[in-house]
Amino acid sequence: MRRFAQVIRVKPEKLDYYLELHRNPWSGVLDTIRQCNIRNYSIFLLDNSMLFAYFEYIGTDFEADMQKMSTDPETIRWWKETDPCQESLGIKAGEWWHTMEEVFHTD
Amino acid sequence: MRRFAQVIRVKPEKLDYYLELHRNPWSGVLDTIRQCNIRNYSIFLLDNSMLFAYFEYIGTDFEADMQKMSTDPETIRWWKETDPCQESLGIKAGEWWHTMEEVFHTD
Repeated sequence: MRRFAQVIRVKPEKLDYYLELHRNPWSGVLDTIRQCNIRNYSIFLLDNSMLFAYFEYIGTDFEADMQKMSTDPETIRWWKETDPCQESLGIKAGEWWHTMEEVFHTD
Repeated sequence: MRRFAQVIRVKPEKLDYYLELHRNPWSGVLDTIRQCNIRNYSIFLLDNSMLFAYFEYIGTDFEADMQKMSTDPETIRWWKETDPCQESLGIKAGEWWHTMEEVFHTD
């Protein structure tokens, strides 16, 4: 299992819509998350301006599973709603969510 | 089980020492974390400037367990090392780590 933590900015004027979407996530999107071997996935809000995601990956090929996720029609439709709510931190070229480095873990 | 995500600033000049401490955490500190009903505890580093923590609380009285943790001599010694490495974001009065709001979860 690999743990991931990621961060992205949320646009203040789109925050309410982003939260509304995530209170009632589409079942097809949740199914795809699960089929792509993501478990225990949470998103937290920091000071109405940043989103912090934590999830656990139980598969064996993360890139292939992310590729699979990105071709699911329902997920593509979902991202068409959520992407305009977000803004990359721009820490690393080409990134959307920025993946952080794990510096401590205890079970 | 309650999930927690927290954030705090790390001082750039103290980052190396903070990371070194967390590569070899003291066993007494880890024991206390466990005895205080914290599980699956990770810390992630954002852009050498912020620390994001994620953990799961399996007890029934979080405040009492945190009180217990704060009176453990080894943990007090550990915090004497780690506190000077950190700086509160100052989002909420009296907070050290800032606890974020969970806005999405799927198992």
